[in-house]
Amino acid sequence: MALPLREELRGIAPYGAPQIDVPVALNVNENPYPPSEAVVADVAAAAAEAARTLNRYPDREFVALRAALADYLGHGVTPEQVWAANGSNEVMLQILQAFGGPGRTAVSFAPTYSMYPEYARDAMTGWVVGHRAEDFTLDPAHAVAVVKEHQPSVVLLPSPNNPTGTALAPDTVAAVCAASAEVDGVVVIDEAYGEFRRSGTPSALELLPTTPNLVVSRTMSKAFALAGARLGYLAASPQICDALRVVRLPYHLSALTQAVALVALRHREELLGRVDDLRAERDATVAWLRAQGLTVADSDANFALFGTFPDRHAVWQGLLDRGVLIRETGPDGWLRVSIGTPAEMAAFKAALLEVLG
Amino acid sequence: MALPLREELRGIAPYGAPQIDVPVALNVNENPYPPSEAVVADVAAAAAEAARTLNRYPDREFVALRAALADYLGHGVTPEQVWAANGSNEVMLQILQAFGGPGRTAVSFAPTYSMYPEYARDAMTGWVVGHRAEDFTLDPAHAVAVVKEHQPSVVLLPSPNNPTGTALAPDTVAAVCAASAEVDGVVVIDEAYGEFRRSGTPSALELLPTTPNLVVSRTMSKAFALAGARLGYLAASPQICDALRVVRLPYHLSALTQAVALVALRHREELLGRVDDLRAERDATVAWLRAQGLTVADSDANFALFGTFPDRHAVWQGLLDRGVLIRETGPDGWLRVSIGTPAEMAAFKAALLEVLG
Repeated sequence: MALPLREELRGIAPYGAPQIDVPVALNVNENPYPPSEAVVADVAAAAAEAARTLNRYPDREFVALRAALADYLGHGVTPEQVWAANGSNEVMLQILQAFGGPGRTAVSFAPTYSMYPEYARDAMTGWVVGHRAEDFTLDPAHAVAVVKEHQPSVVLLPSPNNPTGTALAPDTVAAVCAASAEVDGVVVIDEAYGEFRRSGTPSALELLPTTPNLVVSRTMSKAFALAGARLGYLAASPQICDALRVVRLPYHLSALTQAVALVALRHREELLGRVDDLRAERDATVAWLRAQGLTVADSDANFALFGTFPDRHAVWQGLLDRGVLIRETGPDGWLRVSIGTPAEMAAFKAALLEVLG
Repeated sequence: MALPLREELRGIAPYGAPQIDVPVALNVNENPYPPSEAVVADVAAAAAEAARTLNRYPDREFVALRAALADYLGHGVTPEQVWAANGSNEVMLQILQAFGGPGRTAVSFAPTYSMYPEYARDAMTGWVVGHRAEDFTLDPAHAVAVVKEHQPSVVLLPSPNNPTGTALAPDTVAAVCAASAEVDGVVVIDEAYGEFRRSGTPSALELLPTTPNLVVSRTMSKAFALAGARLGYLAASPQICDALRVVRLPYHLSALTQAVALVALRHREELLGRVDDLRAERDATVAWLRAQGLTVADSDANFALFGTFPDRHAVWQGLLDRGVLIRETGPDGWLRVSIGTPAEMAAFKAALLEVLG
């Protein structure tokens, strides 16, 4: 017999950056700073407390976590406006399961996060890609035209964008939301890297009170330095959260996940304390790359996209040969480096100088 | 604007038993025995160790956990034949995302687990239900006829069945697998309650080496008493596991989930040590209910389906009024009670006697 694998999955490799053990890993936009021993101790204590009732199902409504996330987000967000899942990617899948599906279309603008088309595929949703400008900004007139033409039920817009680092102007977000509302669509502003924005770049959360079709998603993987805990979340209208509740798998957030996320929120001053260091290191890295004569996209995130190289794979491999792993992603000729510690960035710079001769 | 909620989700209440705080909770087939302080301490230690690198993504391939699960399952199962996700429900969704989808059909036989049609809906897969016999067994000739008629790409068969507790005869499993192979379909034997089988009832794992379209799923929620940790898993051919790898969300298992599941497997002697007590309590409960003149389905699980009542809701409410929460599920007139501690079952019996007057 043949396996009944869906046609569009045949020959597809599982998504994911290579898992290579290297001295300097700057490939998946992780936060380089592990939690302090104080946080570690609190995680252990919270895990022990959760373990004592681990024979019982977790709170399906994760009430305490929703309240704590609402408090963190501020901007008047209430617990009824908060949703969370195992990583932003489960949040996105749930959005497409609720609002996408067969006969419907999701839209983004390239270059954009490479998982989006996979979410759409897994939720059997049509996928249309508009384009960003040469400098990776998004022209609101083009975005609105794409929305009007394809009438997507979901628009996925990362801000800051991955892999370019480009934040969206508030006017662009507002224009896309207005155009989407006219075709009964929702707009997801994916602020996975939101906390790394340069000062003066506003969050889409500011538009939430006046924009009922807006979803602002976040993650604890980046600024909170909690990629291993897998906690993505969003703020949106209570009606949107209720829709996600229908398609969520019951008890999707384990007791441990809820407990650890609560610990992280209690320790947010420490965990987010490195964000400013990373922003400064990012700005310094961008400036240094430009000083070498390279082109670098403006970045509001914890990574930089730089290039361009006639043979980017050779550059990537040269860095890897020197123990520095970055990511071969984005448009042809570009490479993406995550912002690590000063020592890691020094190693990256030294290796890059060698590779570029 | 109107939210673009998918048509089939409109007016649907989120799945889940009522979360009511009661002295005696016998409604969601939890294991009543919490882990010992030795296990709690090991969970805390494992969580602390995981926390120290929580800024990094978890092992996307969960290599250590797959090896430990293969070791636990025995029957010659290798790590390449093991897959896991956040609860059996994510495992089932992934199976339907890989092998179901628009234009395809999944089949089960009623009465069956009430989440199955929701998984099918969330994976946009057609849903067809055959039937079980009066005594809740499955007639292989009927099952084969349904498979031949509807040519499902996935058959979902719980054994022991939920909510009836009925285990499948190996001949029935073999017949359904053979019929499904002829239409290029996979068969999932959902052994969520497998460890509670009465002696002499074999696991479908025995058929795995000779049955390439067979998937045997398990969970740590029941026998392992780890419902709060959300770990479902399966054994199948490496080809089937590879297909699930394509649709899984990257890093779907958190570092904490992997660590806690490994702790549970190390402590399996203790955690599974109560299974025999629960089987004995189950058999005693079935016998007692029958002694009261009630009809009770034969059970190989940690619950009993009993009835029949002209107004089952009144019985359910009467028990709840006495602090005992059971589940109003299954065919009309039946109720399901989970097997708790001897004290909890005594409270259930006393309350039921009062309610039945």
